[in-house]
Amino acid sequence: MGSIDGMYKIVITRDLGPNVMPVLKDKKEFNLIVCPDSTKDRQQWIIENVPGAAGLLCMLSDKITAEIIEAAGPTLKVVSTMSVGYDHVNLPTLKKLNIRLGYTPDILTNAVADLSVMLALMASRNARECMDTVQNGQWPNSPWTPFGFCGPQISVVPNETQPGKYSQGRTVGFFGFGRIAQATLARLVPFGVSKFIYTGNPSAVVDQATLDRDAAIAKSVGLPSDAISRVSLDDLASQSDVLFVLAPGGASTYHAIDASFLSKMKSTSVLVNASRGTIVDSDALAAALRSGQIWGAGLDVVEGEPHITTEHPLVKESRCVVFPHVASATTETRIGIGRLAAFNVISGVFGDEMPSELQIS
Amino acid sequence: MGSIDGMYKIVITRDLGPNVMPVLKDKKEFNLIVCPDSTKDRQQWIIENVPGAAGLLCMLSDKITAEIIEAAGPTLKVVSTMSVGYDHVNLPTLKKLNIRLGYTPDILTNAVADLSVMLALMASRNARECMDTVQNGQWPNSPWTPFGFCGPQISVVPNETQPGKYSQGRTVGFFGFGRIAQATLARLVPFGVSKFIYTGNPSAVVDQATLDRDAAIAKSVGLPSDAISRVSLDDLASQSDVLFVLAPGGASTYHAIDASFLSKMKSTSVLVNASRGTIVDSDALAAALRSGQIWGAGLDVVEGEPHITTEHPLVKESRCVVFPHVASATTETRIGIGRLAAFNVISGVFGDEMPSELQIS
Repeated sequence: MGSIDGMYKIVITRDLGPNVMPVLKDKKEFNLIVCPDSTKDRQQWIIENVPGAAGLLCMLSDKITAEIIEAAGPTLKVVSTMSVGYDHVNLPTLKKLNIRLGYTPDILTNAVADLSVMLALMASRNARECMDTVQNGQWPNSPWTPFGFCGPQISVVPNETQPGKYSQGRTVGFFGFGRIAQATLARLVPFGVSKFIYTGNPSAVVDQATLDRDAAIAKSVGLPSDAISRVSLDDLASQSDVLFVLAPGGASTYHAIDASFLSKMKSTSVLVNASRGTIVDSDALAAALRSGQIWGAGLDVVEGEPHITTEHPLVKESRCVVFPHVASATTETRIGIGRLAAFNVISGVFGDEMPSELQIS
Repeated sequence: MGSIDGMYKIVITRDLGPNVMPVLKDKKEFNLIVCPDSTKDRQQWIIENVPGAAGLLCMLSDKITAEIIEAAGPTLKVVSTMSVGYDHVNLPTLKKLNIRLGYTPDILTNAVADLSVMLALMASRNARECMDTVQNGQWPNSPWTPFGFCGPQISVVPNETQPGKYSQGRTVGFFGFGRIAQATLARLVPFGVSKFIYTGNPSAVVDQATLDRDAAIAKSVGLPSDAISRVSLDDLASQSDVLFVLAPGGASTYHAIDASFLSKMKSTSVLVNASRGTIVDSDALAAALRSGQIWGAGLDVVEGEPHITTEHPLVKESRCVVFPHVASATTETRIGIGRLAAFNVISGVFGDEMPSELQIS
């Protein structure tokens, strides 16, 4: 079943390099078909190569349509995507044909939290204006002034005459409070941030278990048990000094951060989005930056990416730092993701328990 | 003494804005002379205005020469610099004439530590290449690849198949281990960094007090008592995954980070300098980046600044992020520095204990 003469065809949409490919190459029962790097039309390549495959290892950038899944034929046991998201995979067709889906959550948590902290600091500290000044050769023409390049400080500020006394800590908000948000929270505690607020899934009940979880997270990072609290969307907007958007995409969060939300934010606040571009209304954010409604933004994702040109309103805003969706882009994390995707394929093909399988509902 | 008809002339080389100036304006005995923002030759302005001053409030960018100090005349009681450094002030002349010096250490510690962490993340995560890609309109032409834009990860990486297990933590090194380095260290603990090494003043004796201090710092951030250790310069170079240069300038540290030091560093390591440009040999660093000897660099200071043009070898390196000396440039910190400098002037003029006086040796 799935094998021809005991061999399994495994289709892989990218060469995953010397740290990942051996996991698959070591399986003598596998016949690996790897899409060449030079391939122009990767979708077409998949369609042509997937028939007869027992396993399909794909990326977030591939579209695993019903057409592709059906083209594979009855040999297909498993689709393994090298991503935490699975919007690009046609789940109903997988379910209908009883094909399993592997994905790669959790491994990227720390890499994304690292980048989120970096983007918050960059947005506060006017990173783009600073870098442009140097890279455009304007440093010699930028005389030191007491408040030149200044932005709001994320960490607490020592009192000027009372040693050991500090300013009140910032309030950090999270739109979405999953593992990445919690890892980001932990990183900000040594900055002196002591108040964290969040909104979660609006349909989720806030029960004692949620309160207990938040108290446990607070305690685990050395904060009082009431340091983390769930708030309304309005309070999230009006109270956050730094707002991290770390939530799933899709219809339920589409443009949740819109002109109305932004209008309630502080003029010294910064917005970070390291999850899905669709959550933030780009035009509204560009307007809020232009008008000074908020201080700055650090974005790893933008709605419509990668079709973001120099004409995009957010690319034009010097208070907006834009990265090309690289939150999980560390060598170590991508190797880990690749290896997990490879292990998922192996287990899926052999009918074993997969290290990380999505239960399709 | 120092006053004319009970009034004291106070010369201030920059308008310090609405959050600082009232501290001085509230003193009815003060006659404030403030250098206009439009002034082209600020040194000349000081020379012309300083005669008869009781207090001189200056910036790091002013040169407080013997000529200026002597031009002030016998009325001068205090020079108050809005900076932690005082290389720009002629200390022997102050000492000879028994004039006190106020400065502003400590307040900027957190702002500089914040920027240091940001620069380390930016250098690791290929920030300049990422931002250039977007700002040059190349995002649409940069298809996702498994290892595109990837750099080394600072935080620990979850094991792909063993939940709760992580990669070994990075080793973070400090060239100079004062307050800013210690504040930077604290910020990196939640990233999973568990080994910290440093070199200090070579002439300082490593005694039990130093060992006790390091154990106490480790304990205060929740690490084992042996997590922080003083090492040789060679070990600092060869073991550090992230190296922070946070040391005083001057002859004793001039080009301490040179070609020989860089040649011992790891190919995945990054260098951050947020202290003094003279400590790092720019040509050697540019060569190390070009050859791949080290991964990246994040610099807030460059030798010869601000005369750094697009022809500077470090500005040409895409793995080098350069900021225009803004480590203390947050609104809150600069207000605090300005207020402390103002309080120093007031206390100095009236012969009181100053909040922060340098004891000139």
